[in-house]
Amino acid sequence: MVNKQVKLVQRPVGLPDESTWTLESNPIPEPAAGEIVIENHYISLDPAMRGWMNDSKSYIPPVQIGEVMRAGTVGKVIKANNHPRFKEGDFLSGWGGVQQYSLTDGKNYYPVDPNVAPLPMYIGTLGMPGMTAYFGILEVGKIKEGDVVLVSGAAGAVGSIVGQIAKIKGCKVIGIAGGQKKCDYIVNELGFDGAIDYKSESVRDGIKRECPKGIDVYFDNVGGDILDEALAKLRMHARVVICGAISQYNNTTAIKGPSNYLSLLVNRATMQGMVVMDYVKDYQKAAFEMGGWIMQGKLKSKEDVYEGIENFRETFLRLFNGDKMGKLVLKVKE
Amino acid sequence: MVNKQVKLVQRPVGLPDESTWTLESNPIPEPAAGEIVIENHYISLDPAMRGWMNDSKSYIPPVQIGEVMRAGTVGKVIKANNHPRFKEGDFLSGWGGVQQYSLTDGKNYYPVDPNVAPLPMYIGTLGMPGMTAYFGILEVGKIKEGDVVLVSGAAGAVGSIVGQIAKIKGCKVIGIAGGQKKCDYIVNELGFDGAIDYKSESVRDGIKRECPKGIDVYFDNVGGDILDEALAKLRMHARVVICGAISQYNNTTAIKGPSNYLSLLVNRATMQGMVVMDYVKDYQKAAFEMGGWIMQGKLKSKEDVYEGIENFRETFLRLFNGDKMGKLVLKVKE
Repeated sequence: MVNKQVKLVQRPVGLPDESTWTLESNPIPEPAAGEIVIENHYISLDPAMRGWMNDSKSYIPPVQIGEVMRAGTVGKVIKANNHPRFKEGDFLSGWGGVQQYSLTDGKNYYPVDPNVAPLPMYIGTLGMPGMTAYFGILEVGKIKEGDVVLVSGAAGAVGSIVGQIAKIKGCKVIGIAGGQKKCDYIVNELGFDGAIDYKSESVRDGIKRECPKGIDVYFDNVGGDILDEALAKLRMHARVVICGAISQYNNTTAIKGPSNYLSLLVNRATMQGMVVMDYVKDYQKAAFEMGGWIMQGKLKSKEDVYEGIENFRETFLRLFNGDKMGKLVLKVKE
Repeated sequence: MVNKQVKLVQRPVGLPDESTWTLESNPIPEPAAGEIVIENHYISLDPAMRGWMNDSKSYIPPVQIGEVMRAGTVGKVIKANNHPRFKEGDFLSGWGGVQQYSLTDGKNYYPVDPNVAPLPMYIGTLGMPGMTAYFGILEVGKIKEGDVVLVSGAAGAVGSIVGQIAKIKGCKVIGIAGGQKKCDYIVNELGFDGAIDYKSESVRDGIKRECPKGIDVYFDNVGGDILDEALAKLRMHARVVICGAISQYNNTTAIKGPSNYLSLLVNRATMQGMVVMDYVKDYQKAAFEMGGWIMQGKLKSKEDVYEGIENFRETFLRLFNGDKMGKLVLKVKE
């Protein structure tokens, strides 16, 4: 048995390619005193990972050349050496990285229960994307009953939860997604009030049709032209939540800034950025509340699971070509 | 005696030119019952006027072709016909427009006292620009002692007051202005802690020098590249107040959006627009407090007064070529 690890070899310009990562087979590590070894079952694939590969100041240090690619994981403790919190057989979620086995002191890991929810859900709706949605739409978006909420990346791991939480809170919710299948999914399965298919229609026309009185809260996962179209239709005192900008992450030229930002002035609106890690002390409360919604059938969670650490790059690229549905997960346990 | 009036003839593309306005001489109007006629002494020239000339949705309807150009004014009632609030001899400030005499029912006018402050100050520090500064930096910028505050257009009617209020509140204040004279003025006369001359140095280098630990509050009057440079140096939980974008008002191409807007995400920062009219119910309180600061010598007000309604266009253009110091005012009383 070996530990297959994906390490960063070269910082990509634009989309990652064959020269970006290398797959190494190394011995499975042994834990020193106070350490554990985790067998990773599932790896979370998130758009933010693309940002962590750039050598620039951000909310977290960049992944260094030669390091295992950073990623959220969920797995099982297979060896523990006098660890104060964890023992063999525990299931944990944390930052295990793109590798089959992680050696760690357990800091920033927390226990999960495979009997309560399937493991992939702990890196999806009950993990970082779900927390991002929860705190983003409630704390930053400050939604209230009757608000018109527009969300981009609406069939994705974050957007699908954002929209469902806004529905639970009594908002009118419109999603922007790519393709008929995703649009049908968010309306028919998730209960959104409307959908805009950016691949087959003008987003401007779609917003006019679905939000004729304008937008109270826009939750942005994509940036670019879609952000500009949303800004153009803000209502007074609207809130724009900047969660991400997936359309811009692989740019080889300057990021496109929102030309319509003066709509913030005209409409006395607010654009605010968020990083989920700021809310870590309230994760448990949020997971509890979202778990309740899931059990009541009010919140649906969808994971799109692919297999094989060898397929990491190809699977990761689905984040950017849109060829996935819900939370993208890679199963790396063989 | 006639009433010289400046009327909008054609919407400008880019900077207003000879074909934009016409100067007409018309009879001085007579007030009907409940009306007054005001002899305008001073007209306020503000960057926002450029926006009011565009035929697009904004926070106020556009000036229509053939209408007197909208402007804030201060003047004296010369005729009153059974007016419930005002009588001959009263001095009033309001929206008199670019003309020598205004006929009005007095709505949106309020009395001012020339014995308390010089008339031009009522359309400057004690008028719209001063109110914009006061509510913008206190209510939207939410400054607190020790904050590093950066303000663009720092020698202008709004920026100069923003910076001084921030100093009164115990902030470190850096101003961006064009030319050595303005930079000397804000540091030596107004007490700013530092200045960046965007005409003679890189704003990026200037911000690094003057705000080595970054910016807590950026008050933006200009937009464009300077907004981008400020975004690049935000501190955690920074606030960006969008008051205006003078660099973009005469664009003949699309407005430049802030490419660095994702700094809002990285730094959990907020960008919020404001329009001063929202605070009208608190104007009096603000004027009272600012009047106190002026009397105590803590707040300095500078008006740059030009003469002659015939010189309206040429004087107005000083807003955009930077050739003025403090609040730009046109005296139209002959």
